[in-house]
Amino acid sequence: MFSFNILKKDKETKARIGILRTPHGIIHTPNIAIVATKGSIRGLSFDKANRFGAEIFMINTFHFFHNNRYEIVKKFGGLHKFLNINYPLMTDSGGFQIFSLGFGMEHGVGKVADIFPEESNIKNLPISKGRNLVKVYEEGVEFISPYNGRKIFLSPELSIKIQKALRADIIFAFDECTSPLSSYEYTKEAMQRTHRWATRCLDEFGKPENQVMFGIVQGGEYEDLRKESAKYINSLNFFGYGIGGSLGKSKKDIIKVLNWTIPLLDENKPRHLLGIGEVDDIFNSIEQGIDLFDCVIPTRWARHGAAFSYKGRLNLKSSKYLNDKRPIDPKCKCNICKKYSKAYISHLLKEKEIFGIILLTEHNIFWILNLFKEIRQAIKENKFLDLKKRILKYW
Amino acid sequence: MFSFNILKKDKETKARIGILRTPHGIIHTPNIAIVATKGSIRGLSFDKANRFGAEIFMINTFHFFHNNRYEIVKKFGGLHKFLNINYPLMTDSGGFQIFSLGFGMEHGVGKVADIFPEESNIKNLPISKGRNLVKVYEEGVEFISPYNGRKIFLSPELSIKIQKALRADIIFAFDECTSPLSSYEYTKEAMQRTHRWATRCLDEFGKPENQVMFGIVQGGEYEDLRKESAKYINSLNFFGYGIGGSLGKSKKDIIKVLNWTIPLLDENKPRHLLGIGEVDDIFNSIEQGIDLFDCVIPTRWARHGAAFSYKGRLNLKSSKYLNDKRPIDPKCKCNICKKYSKAYISHLLKEKEIFGIILLTEHNIFWILNLFKEIRQAIKENKFLDLKKRILKYW
Repeated sequence: MFSFNILKKDKETKARIGILRTPHGIIHTPNIAIVATKGSIRGLSFDKANRFGAEIFMINTFHFFHNNRYEIVKKFGGLHKFLNINYPLMTDSGGFQIFSLGFGMEHGVGKVADIFPEESNIKNLPISKGRNLVKVYEEGVEFISPYNGRKIFLSPELSIKIQKALRADIIFAFDECTSPLSSYEYTKEAMQRTHRWATRCLDEFGKPENQVMFGIVQGGEYEDLRKESAKYINSLNFFGYGIGGSLGKSKKDIIKVLNWTIPLLDENKPRHLLGIGEVDDIFNSIEQGIDLFDCVIPTRWARHGAAFSYKGRLNLKSSKYLNDKRPIDPKCKCNICKKYSKAYISHLLKEKEIFGIILLTEHNIFWILNLFKEIRQAIKENKFLDLKKRILKYW
Repeated sequence: MFSFNILKKDKETKARIGILRTPHGIIHTPNIAIVATKGSIRGLSFDKANRFGAEIFMINTFHFFHNNRYEIVKKFGGLHKFLNINYPLMTDSGGFQIFSLGFGMEHGVGKVADIFPEESNIKNLPISKGRNLVKVYEEGVEFISPYNGRKIFLSPELSIKIQKALRADIIFAFDECTSPLSSYEYTKEAMQRTHRWATRCLDEFGKPENQVMFGIVQGGEYEDLRKESAKYINSLNFFGYGIGGSLGKSKKDIIKVLNWTIPLLDENKPRHLLGIGEVDDIFNSIEQGIDLFDCVIPTRWARHGAAFSYKGRLNLKSSKYLNDKRPIDPKCKCNICKKYSKAYISHLLKEKEIFGIILLTEHNIFWILNLFKEIRQAIKENKFLDLKKRILKYW
């Protein structure tokens, strides 16, 4: 029911196109999982995103764990039935929240130290910044719920149990996502724990027919740790690999980390770069051999009034657009660019109208999915680096 | 280009069905103008609302006045071009804000004293309750902007100038909307001022080809004032009538006010009840001869997690719906009721997901438009009171 086939490798780079088959459909890689954190894309239906070309969606285990909502989903028979959709789904493991509610919240940083925190989710949580809400033990992790202050405990086994109840096609092993501010020693300790957790996850997972699991490589920004982790995770029986954790002090470090890691992974298995998805990062990562992404940027930017365009990121809240009768991106074929002016969208955003967010979300998701189509086509035609050069001129 | 024809009168009540023709299309009455305060329906596109049967939309002059945004709309050639839609539009005059930012804000009441204020917009404004932001003069009204504290002045002439720039098909005369807490003396004084403003509005309006104006009857909950106002406004050359201002101490007073007012208005002209739209009010008002409504309830309820259904208002934030696999309303033919369970929608609302609001908005607007279709059909078949009885069993 599951398979991954590489159709073509780029001649100049490590980029490749492939087909990932799941019981709910095919994913053409490279591709991006549209994020539906709590079971919805913020501002768009799954069906519409699918019509735009979305082939897989990412849902977050933590958000169905902290409130025990997974028990209700289980009664429905899994997320596909709860959401009433038939598209391939993936769930993360909850490991990201070890970082985001731990060091991430304490220090106000992202997985790459120089991006964040102004666009973080944190400020929307009913709890103050600067507080670490996480204690990590060998057995698992104790979170203080950012929603109600209650203590909740998540172990590798429970993460897998929950992910089996949620029944996404692709699930992830429970890992400790480390911070770019963590020391070498701490990053090493966390990586070793993640490796022990990986085998516990595989034991708990067993061999279900309707799901496959990706293992997660950790090791932060340290070459020897990344290599050790890649080798170890590669030695276990995972269907594919996630590359997680801190990706360094700046966006350039992402390339280094991938360059250390990817050559040590079985080239016939899919590689997912967790939580990354700015336009330059996408090109740089595919160039290193990444097949899959997931990222909140298309939807989060929309909520902040920012749009993707071939001319780079546009801040549509700016008053300069109030008189602009042109679409967000004249080259974009989405319905928003066919119908609406920048002036109207800017007006809605300035007036805090929910419909402005809806329009931008639709545009941004269409735009990023179209970019992936162009990337796959470019790899097919051996024009990946040409496309990269052309697009990144403005990004 | 404009006409209003009554097609049939109900045999048992003053209800009637008619056709209102405008340059942008036909409105079958009785009908409700879907509110798009700042130029968008909160959570739904105009096109989708139109596919559900929406035939006219209401946009608020005040929200394009306080920020001078009407000057931008004017450069586009009016709202239809700014929004890129071709549906009939109406704009109110800004008179409602004399109330909502004045006594309404000071006393925390609505146009009917016992509804409001918990669902008011006021709490979303960056200014404290309990403050009157309005000074009324013969010349016009000085508002303190609730957005930035700046003083802004709106006169009957400016309201009409702005409404001509916005170019909605149907516009309203500038009136003083009074409070249910206003005295007889104040209500009388305000009504007389509204009458003087009505003639100033007509003078400013002239005889454009592409717009018609409705005059507004005031007089609060006082029989002699309502009758005096109806007679006076009826004597002027308006295309139709709005019934505005305080409608009394409780919902029952609405019926009294309409019963005094409507018999004194030219029966061949359309009658619009401003800002009212709960299900029982709709039936009671149509029974008295009302043709048109506008109301924020379908969209505002959605933002508060409340749904229309044949079993009455449902609060979908309630945990009891988290296990409910059934749709919001099994009798409803909307896409939301075809596809989504109450459990999923309840989950989204509890998680404050924007997509939950989007789903409820679509359902509520579909539902209320369908109710109007049923009402028109019932009047056609002389079954209006039967339908009223059946629907109001749960409302």
